[in-house]
Amino acid sequence: MSPRKIRVIHYGLGPIGVETAGLVLGKTNMEIVGAVDISKDMVGKDLGDILDLKRELGITVTDNARQLLAGVKADVVIHTTGSRMKNIFSQLVEIVEAGVNIVSSAEELLIPSAENSELADELSRKAVEKGVTVLGTGVNPGFVMDSLPLFLTAVCQDVKKIRVERVVDAATRRYPLQKKIGAGMTPEVFRAKIDEKALGHAGLLESLYLIADRLDLSFDEVRESVDPVMAVKPVKTDYFDLKAGDIAGIKHIAEGVKDGEEIVVLDLRMYIGAEDPHDSIYITGTPDINMKIDGGVAGDKATTAMLVNSIPAVVDSKPGLVTVKDIPSPHFYR
Amino acid sequence: MSPRKIRVIHYGLGPIGVETAGLVLGKTNMEIVGAVDISKDMVGKDLGDILDLKRELGITVTDNARQLLAGVKADVVIHTTGSRMKNIFSQLVEIVEAGVNIVSSAEELLIPSAENSELADELSRKAVEKGVTVLGTGVNPGFVMDSLPLFLTAVCQDVKKIRVERVVDAATRRYPLQKKIGAGMTPEVFRAKIDEKALGHAGLLESLYLIADRLDLSFDEVRESVDPVMAVKPVKTDYFDLKAGDIAGIKHIAEGVKDGEEIVVLDLRMYIGAEDPHDSIYITGTPDINMKIDGGVAGDKATTAMLVNSIPAVVDSKPGLVTVKDIPSPHFYR
Repeated sequence: MSPRKIRVIHYGLGPIGVETAGLVLGKTNMEIVGAVDISKDMVGKDLGDILDLKRELGITVTDNARQLLAGVKADVVIHTTGSRMKNIFSQLVEIVEAGVNIVSSAEELLIPSAENSELADELSRKAVEKGVTVLGTGVNPGFVMDSLPLFLTAVCQDVKKIRVERVVDAATRRYPLQKKIGAGMTPEVFRAKIDEKALGHAGLLESLYLIADRLDLSFDEVRESVDPVMAVKPVKTDYFDLKAGDIAGIKHIAEGVKDGEEIVVLDLRMYIGAEDPHDSIYITGTPDINMKIDGGVAGDKATTAMLVNSIPAVVDSKPGLVTVKDIPSPHFYR
Repeated sequence: MSPRKIRVIHYGLGPIGVETAGLVLGKTNMEIVGAVDISKDMVGKDLGDILDLKRELGITVTDNARQLLAGVKADVVIHTTGSRMKNIFSQLVEIVEAGVNIVSSAEELLIPSAENSELADELSRKAVEKGVTVLGTGVNPGFVMDSLPLFLTAVCQDVKKIRVERVVDAATRRYPLQKKIGAGMTPEVFRAKIDEKALGHAGLLESLYLIADRLDLSFDEVRESVDPVMAVKPVKTDYFDLKAGDIAGIKHIAEGVKDGEEIVVLDLRMYIGAEDPHDSIYITGTPDINMKIDGGVAGDKATTAMLVNSIPAVVDSKPGLVTVKDIPSPHFYR
C-alpha cells in the first residue's frame, strides 16, 4: 500500500453513491477529492450536507465532470450512475481520457456482452492508451453469482455443472428495489413490463457470460425467463401490503444449455416475504462443492463494500477494461 | 491465454505430485516437460510408468534438478516435496535461478512467518531478479481457511471477527494422513508427539498470518493448541480399528487475540469417524456472513486441482514471492 492516500471521486450520488462516499470517508488510506451528480438538488452543495454529516467536507457537488477531472488529481472514480453501457459510455470515456481509474456499479460492465462489444472495445483501447483500469463490480453481478462460484471451482479437477441460487427477501430492501421487482403489480401490468424488458435483474446474463468465459464453456443456447412469484400468505412492508396470491416479486432465471443439458443455471428470486433467504452454489464436478450462505449476501451495504474494497486492486492493476477475475480478488480494507 | 502450451516440470512425485501430473496431462493448454524425484525406485523410469498409464510419456524421472532445469525450457515447476521452508529452500532457489516460476504445496510458503522471513526475503529478491513468480498454495493452507474467508470479506463494510471451522472425516483420506493425525495412538504417545511438535496441521498458523496481514490486524497474542479427539463409538477404516474412547484424530486451533478477545479463530478437526464434515466461515461484521460447505473441500483431488488451476495466474503475474491474495484468484481450467 502506498503511503499516499488513494484519491477518490464519487460520480453519481444516488443511494449507492452516497453510501459508498460514507464508507470511503472512514477508510484510513483513502480520501474524497470530488463529487459529481446531475441532480439540481445537489449541485453546489457540500458533500457533507448530502451525506447528512452535519459538517462540511469542502467538496462541492458539481454536474461538470469534465471540469472537475481537469482540475483535481484523482486516482479512481467510483461510478454509480446507471446499468446500461450505452447510457454511461460517454461518462466512462470522459473519466478514462482524464487518466483516472474506474470502479463502476454498472451491471453491463461486468463483462461485455456481444451487444456491447464495440463500445467495450473502444473503452478498453482508450483505457490501455491512458494507462488506467476500468472495472465493473458489485455483489450481483460481481460476487455471489459469478466471481464466488468461479473461485470455488479453483479446487475442482473437473466442472460439469454449476447451479447458483439466490433468494432475497425484498421486504428488507429499500423502496426502489421493492418496486423494481414488481411487488403489488397486477398480472397484466407485470406481463406488460416483462414484454418491454422493464422487469428483471440487470446483470444476470453478464454473470452467465463471465462464468462461461472463464470456464471456457460454449453454450448451444442461452435461456432467460422472468416470472412473477406470488405471496403465499399476507405480507406487509413499509411500502406494500400484499395478500396471498398477490405478486410479491420476481423469479429471474438464466441458463446456459449444452447438448440439451443446463450446464450453468443462475436462479435469482427476489420477493417480499421470501423465507430462508440465502445464496447457494452447487458445483457438480471433481469434487462436488455444495455451499450455502445463510441469509445471503444482500443489501446495499454489501454492494458498496465490494465497490470500495475493489479500489486498491484497481489502482494497482494493469490497464484496460478488466473483469473481477482479472485482478487480485478484493478483501476488506480498513 | 497464450496459444503456446504452458510447459510444466513436476518436482516431487509423492501422492500429490503424481496426482498433479495426471491432472496436467489432461489440460489442453499445458504439457509436461520434466519430472524430478530423489526416490531410487523412480529415477530413470518413464513418468508414464510412475503414473500407471500403460504408455510412455517420453519424460524420464531424474534426481538431478539442476541439470534438467538447464537442459529444458519450462514455464513453471509444480513443487511438492515438503512443508518446511528450511528443508526446501535450496530446491526453490535452484528453480528460481533457472528462471522458472513455481507453484508449491509447501505450507510454510503461504506467507513467510517471522521465523522464515530471512529465507523468504532472499527467495523473493532472487525471484524478482530473475523475473519469476513463486507461490505457495493448496486447499489448506491456500483456500478454505485463508483465501476463501478473505474473499468473503470483500462484501463487508467492517469486519470484527472471523471464525473458520473445518471438520474432516479422516476415514476418507489416505493412510499417511490417518497416521499423521494420531489415530490409534495411546494418549502417552500422542502427548509426546505434541511436545515434539510432530502432530498438528502444517500451515494453520500461516493461514492466520495471511488473514491478519490482509485485514491489517495486529494481535496481542497468538494461541495455538493441539488436542486429541476421541472416538465416541467404534469406527473402522482400511487401516485402523478404533473403539469408543480411542484417539481418532486431532483438534488443532489457532487464535489471534486482541484486547482479550479471539478476533480470528481457525478451528481444524481431522479425525476418523467425524460426522457432518464441513467447512464453515463465520464473519462478524457489516454485514455478517455465515457460509457452510457441506462435506467440506477435502481430499487430495482438491489440493492438486488448486495447484494446477493456479498455474496460469502464476505464469502471468509480476515477479517475486507472492501470496494467493496477490494474484488473480484461480478458477478451474479445462
